[in-house]
Amino acid sequence: MNRIPFEEVQQQLARVLCKLGFSVDRAGASARLFAETTCDGVYTHGINRFPRYVATIRNGSVVIDAEPKRLAGFGALERWDGQHGPGNLNALAMTDRALALSREHGVGCVALGNTNHWMRGGTYGWQAAEAGSIGICWTNTMPNLPPWGSVERVIGNNPLVVAVPRAAGPVVLDMAMSQFSYGTLESYRKRDQLLPVDGGFDADGNLTRDPAAIEKSWRPLPVGYWKGSGLSIVLDMMAAMMTLGQATHQLSHDPVFECGISQMFLAINPEAFGPEPRITQIADEIIASLHNAKPATAGKPVRYPGEETLRIRAENRELGLPVDPAVWSEILST
Amino acid sequence: MNRIPFEEVQQQLARVLCKLGFSVDRAGASARLFAETTCDGVYTHGINRFPRYVATIRNGSVVIDAEPKRLAGFGALERWDGQHGPGNLNALAMTDRALALSREHGVGCVALGNTNHWMRGGTYGWQAAEAGSIGICWTNTMPNLPPWGSVERVIGNNPLVVAVPRAAGPVVLDMAMSQFSYGTLESYRKRDQLLPVDGGFDADGNLTRDPAAIEKSWRPLPVGYWKGSGLSIVLDMMAAMMTLGQATHQLSHDPVFECGISQMFLAINPEAFGPEPRITQIADEIIASLHNAKPATAGKPVRYPGEETLRIRAENRELGLPVDPAVWSEILST
Repeated sequence: MNRIPFEEVQQQLARVLCKLGFSVDRAGASARLFAETTCDGVYTHGINRFPRYVATIRNGSVVIDAEPKRLAGFGALERWDGQHGPGNLNALAMTDRALALSREHGVGCVALGNTNHWMRGGTYGWQAAEAGSIGICWTNTMPNLPPWGSVERVIGNNPLVVAVPRAAGPVVLDMAMSQFSYGTLESYRKRDQLLPVDGGFDADGNLTRDPAAIEKSWRPLPVGYWKGSGLSIVLDMMAAMMTLGQATHQLSHDPVFECGISQMFLAINPEAFGPEPRITQIADEIIASLHNAKPATAGKPVRYPGEETLRIRAENRELGLPVDPAVWSEILST
Repeated sequence: MNRIPFEEVQQQLARVLCKLGFSVDRAGASARLFAETTCDGVYTHGINRFPRYVATIRNGSVVIDAEPKRLAGFGALERWDGQHGPGNLNALAMTDRALALSREHGVGCVALGNTNHWMRGGTYGWQAAEAGSIGICWTNTMPNLPPWGSVERVIGNNPLVVAVPRAAGPVVLDMAMSQFSYGTLESYRKRDQLLPVDGGFDADGNLTRDPAAIEKSWRPLPVGYWKGSGLSIVLDMMAAMMTLGQATHQLSHDPVFECGISQMFLAINPEAFGPEPRITQIADEIIASLHNAKPATAGKPVRYPGEETLRIRAENRELGLPVDPAVWSEILST
């Protein structure tokens, strides 16, 4: 693993995007999001994801200069058309829009159809929380998960992001509805390790911790079995119904043609009624109750969602972003 | 199990509530919610729960004539004080309030502090969906679940309800953040059965399907292990921060003193931009994609959340509500 300074990564990615036709501003913004994702330790959806992103630009799934267009608005609720633009730039703009609506109405809700993969969902949670707002957003995805009771992938892993602002560092949950992603299964298999808990079914329909068996059966588990399966279904329904856009069952099984997806962005302004010092205190006391809980393993206290992010971010900023040499040389030669 | 007609159940429960001091109207409304919960097949939170509800009235946890009071409002967002009134009547009123806000602003969000157990959360999902709205609501609870990485119960199972309106019958997800409730563990133990999947840890810290071992360790599993643990934490944070009310760690471990809790009610109006026939079509096509998916067990198609409810409701309306004779005679003698 090489370490490359943040700015150099951002510059190189922006250079590639400009070469593909992005404006300088949009190339810089998109490159920043990829670099920040790696910087925050979400290695699956940062630089390592960039080559696949380039493929979706080249095959026309992503329309590089398309910007979201407002279709309808009523008070705190709006419907937008992503016009197949870059998923991360669209999501960034729609989070800003939900935040603006929440400043005006206390709450804001934006439904975005015809968009593309937003890369790291947590990005938009951090964006909302750093603006002082609660952020709740989710996306549907290609069919990559069998619903509970089926062997066929007809639901998505539909990541859900919930972010809570907090002076000492936001709390950001970014959870897909599958217990393990295919990327995680692959990395356990390559290390020849079993999963820490059951992650899916084998070909005979038995629960298993063997990543290779799950990759073969294409039957990863929804989180909480029937419960996460149900949550995935309602997230997809809400996104498709509010956008009048595509639902998971209408999307391609091919990751480089996972396009025209549907997303929801909610922002809730905790200080809509005026400045309120008790809010920070309430959040800090909840965090303290977690940190004070007796750990299952001595010396390993409970962590809140996103707790490690600020530490990892600082470390990667200082040491440089960890980059797979093969991926990096592919980017340099693009 | 006896079968008692719906109206007779409602009458008897209302009689008891009147005797305890409820007004006739409020007794009737509360009794109806308990009867409807049993009628819909959620037997843990209907008639069988009524004796514990009576205990919370008698010990002063529930203030029978208290009604929610509006503390602050800004556009589509409001903060209310439940004033320790009956949890189900408070939640019913706050769902109505969120619906009214969503009719005015497209979205409505109500934060309700100082309230009591809402009994079946799904009730308020059905209420929103039957009014044609998406409903998202959640509650915090007493500390009844160890967060991931701890052996100590400091988070709640914080049920989350997501309801989607649909002409052919709403889709209503009502999920607690524990994989199995203590009630479910008890019923498996009494039937001498193992859980269908791992439900918690035994005293030695090993995952187990043995309900008795989990009851003994007090370590049920969050749904999806670390994921449901994280979701429980952010649900509690949002509810406590927006209400300025109590968080899980501040609540009693004794179920009859689980009072002064915090809840959130969101309503999103899918037809805020005008009547839209495509919405029903989108929902129906998603349901069809589930029903057409190849089942894991031949002849047992995938079900959507809440799918069985309308059938069970009709059956119990016709045959009478299934009532535990011991619980029923306790109610009759109250």
